[in-house]
Amino acid sequence: MNVELVNTGSELMLGRVLNTHQQWLCRRLADLGHVVTRQVAIADAARDIREAVREALSRADLVITTGGLGPTSDDLTRELIAKLLGKKLVENKNVLAHIEKFFAKHNRPRPAKTSVETFVPEGALVFLNQNGTAPGLAMKIEPNHFRADKKSSWLVMLPGPPRELRPMFDDSVVPLLKREFADEIFVCRTLRTSGIGESSVQEKVENDLQPLVKMGLEVGYCARPGAVDVRLTASGAGAEKIVRDGEAVVQKILGANIFGFDDDEIEQVVVQLLMECKKTLALAESCTGGNVAHRLTNVPGASEVFLGGVVSYSNAAKEKFLGVCAESLAAHGAVSEAVAREMAAGAREKFGSDFAMAITGIAGPGGGSPDKPVGTVFIALASSTGVAVKKFLNAWDRATFKEVAATQALEWLRQTLSA
Amino acid sequence: MNVELVNTGSELMLGRVLNTHQQWLCRRLADLGHVVTRQVAIADAARDIREAVREALSRADLVITTGGLGPTSDDLTRELIAKLLGKKLVENKNVLAHIEKFFAKHNRPRPAKTSVETFVPEGALVFLNQNGTAPGLAMKIEPNHFRADKKSSWLVMLPGPPRELRPMFDDSVVPLLKREFADEIFVCRTLRTSGIGESSVQEKVENDLQPLVKMGLEVGYCARPGAVDVRLTASGAGAEKIVRDGEAVVQKILGANIFGFDDDEIEQVVVQLLMECKKTLALAESCTGGNVAHRLTNVPGASEVFLGGVVSYSNAAKEKFLGVCAESLAAHGAVSEAVAREMAAGAREKFGSDFAMAITGIAGPGGGSPDKPVGTVFIALASSTGVAVKKFLNAWDRATFKEVAATQALEWLRQTLSA
Repeated sequence: MNVELVNTGSELMLGRVLNTHQQWLCRRLADLGHVVTRQVAIADAARDIREAVREALSRADLVITTGGLGPTSDDLTRELIAKLLGKKLVENKNVLAHIEKFFAKHNRPRPAKTSVETFVPEGALVFLNQNGTAPGLAMKIEPNHFRADKKSSWLVMLPGPPRELRPMFDDSVVPLLKREFADEIFVCRTLRTSGIGESSVQEKVENDLQPLVKMGLEVGYCARPGAVDVRLTASGAGAEKIVRDGEAVVQKILGANIFGFDDDEIEQVVVQLLMECKKTLALAESCTGGNVAHRLTNVPGASEVFLGGVVSYSNAAKEKFLGVCAESLAAHGAVSEAVAREMAAGAREKFGSDFAMAITGIAGPGGGSPDKPVGTVFIALASSTGVAVKKFLNAWDRATFKEVAATQALEWLRQTLSA
Repeated sequence: MNVELVNTGSELMLGRVLNTHQQWLCRRLADLGHVVTRQVAIADAARDIREAVREALSRADLVITTGGLGPTSDDLTRELIAKLLGKKLVENKNVLAHIEKFFAKHNRPRPAKTSVETFVPEGALVFLNQNGTAPGLAMKIEPNHFRADKKSSWLVMLPGPPRELRPMFDDSVVPLLKREFADEIFVCRTLRTSGIGESSVQEKVENDLQPLVKMGLEVGYCARPGAVDVRLTASGAGAEKIVRDGEAVVQKILGANIFGFDDDEIEQVVVQLLMECKKTLALAESCTGGNVAHRLTNVPGASEVFLGGVVSYSNAAKEKFLGVCAESLAAHGAVSEAVAREMAAGAREKFGSDFAMAITGIAGPGGGSPDKPVGTVFIALASSTGVAVKKFLNAWDRATFKEVAATQALEWLRQTLSA
């Protein structure tokens, strides 16, 4: 089966926006057994869109377009595709009712422009948009005259905003694919690790994986801030067993550093473990500036185990909210083992939590010194057994530093909770 | 001038890696006056690469490929392109010397595999790789038989790793482009707004922009969480004036809602304004869970004006750290105007800041009720003149809700500071 993606958006071609649709859709499709063969991005220009869709339809069994379904003048996809396929646009009452309900729910009058969104190509399947107004559309083109063999193809049009596209794909496109395309055998498993570098991960596992690679296992490594993914894929008969055997090899070697699988995020695993252990957590964040709290509170239900945190960005806040001694700050500085220790102990006591973590460091670009260079970070973990402190050096840019330090704190807590 | 990008890499098609080359190269090229018309991604598969390069060469004046130049078995680009153009691969002594020096510098023996990197298509320009071994390559194809008009095209091949590709583009490709392609005039300006929806933004400005559109102005709208970008572009003679005039029109109509330009983030603008006004800020975050603090502390130098925040995710934390009355919590609930007000006042007092903002709401998916549905949020702003509260309904998924609420809080503070 041949799948192609067509991403439209002038902002993509100007390099103003990162194309996250490609990765997200490729990944979801691969997980369903369909590896995308080609992805194309073009501007919101009629000629380019028409040509890209026509070419994709000349090759693919499934074409997915993203973007260009909204109400503004640069949203051209719906109309162009209707014309290309010789279909009229007809008003759809369900879409109209849905859009009216959407604006009523948001307490806003419906802008007149949204009317164009209620017109859909004759005969198209309509996916109502649970997070916006523009519906998704799907059409079976049968026969597909753009193909030399005239076989049928499916054309699926999805709205551009990720928060609209993603749930729509899962809720509406996945069932369509399962119905229309018999699953092909393709197995992909990602083991997510933390606390080891990318080349060390590879060095540790590659020899033991070699026999499976000869049998068709493909191994990929991907470094993320504070984490490394090991990706195992195989296809065809026996794929499932080859990937499962590969997973067992990696598990045996890296087990303690594997925090999750596939789409697991370390913060989800930590919230889950806290729930299972019925323990609560508080935070005292300095250099991560609320990033750990932000990531934890992205997990639905986090409020059951996360009591709160203090973003103690000033020395006064460290003293006032966490009870850090002025003497410790003066003697050791805010970025020190002693202050990290007091921050964690203070947060645990004031919030009355089972665990508390504190992070203090130098995110840069300024503020470094010879003995405490930019990237220095102290992380403390307070529990009923006392307070422990670890020191790391994360010599990255500011944003990566914050992300890596947050992951290090979460990984330490995860290891503690799993022990 | 027609520019196309061809990105190769199986990891891209499996969705395991984000294609950052597209954004980076599109942006750099746009800044040089060359807007990319089409970008294609394909796997490391001979047939797909050959077909994509052939198609690009049939249309474009400049084709840039990324990836596939390394020493391993899935690096196919160099050989395939040589074959496609009927060129022999010949050993290049400069590349050999460069690679030998590279390994000597790293105190490692040169792997035998790297020999393939020393072979380049006959007549190709070679860009030595300052951060790796595989050289970049450029070829002028004259005449280009893949084009109907047989005009010449340039084909540039760059290595895949961003830390190799980016400096090579700046050091070697930019001079080539400046030499070979007279700079075309292309002007792009993005005005970033907050507090108005996408269709309303267009409704407000489109009529007044119409005369400029007739003169060649292109207008694009892009919705982000809590923000809408208006992008003005033009090319050719007079482009600068057309875009400047367009900017003046949008400024006049949306002025109060424009928080920045091009790459400005609202949190950068807020930190900048606080610095200019010499004012300090504290936060009391409930439903945003530290996201506002996280975004503010992404800005270098934020510590000069941001004193800190409390992530008061539990009622106990609201009472203890912010002095919210137990009675208010009992009478009105944690998500209420009264509690938002007390949180902001408490944060301002305890941190001793000039301004304090509080955010309390229902992020979902659970926790909603008929009179306080998921998405309800109260935002309070405390200053020397008292405390004001606004209510919003952000009926989005949890992550978007947090992002939108954070932007609403930052936008309110921005407006207050700019007033």
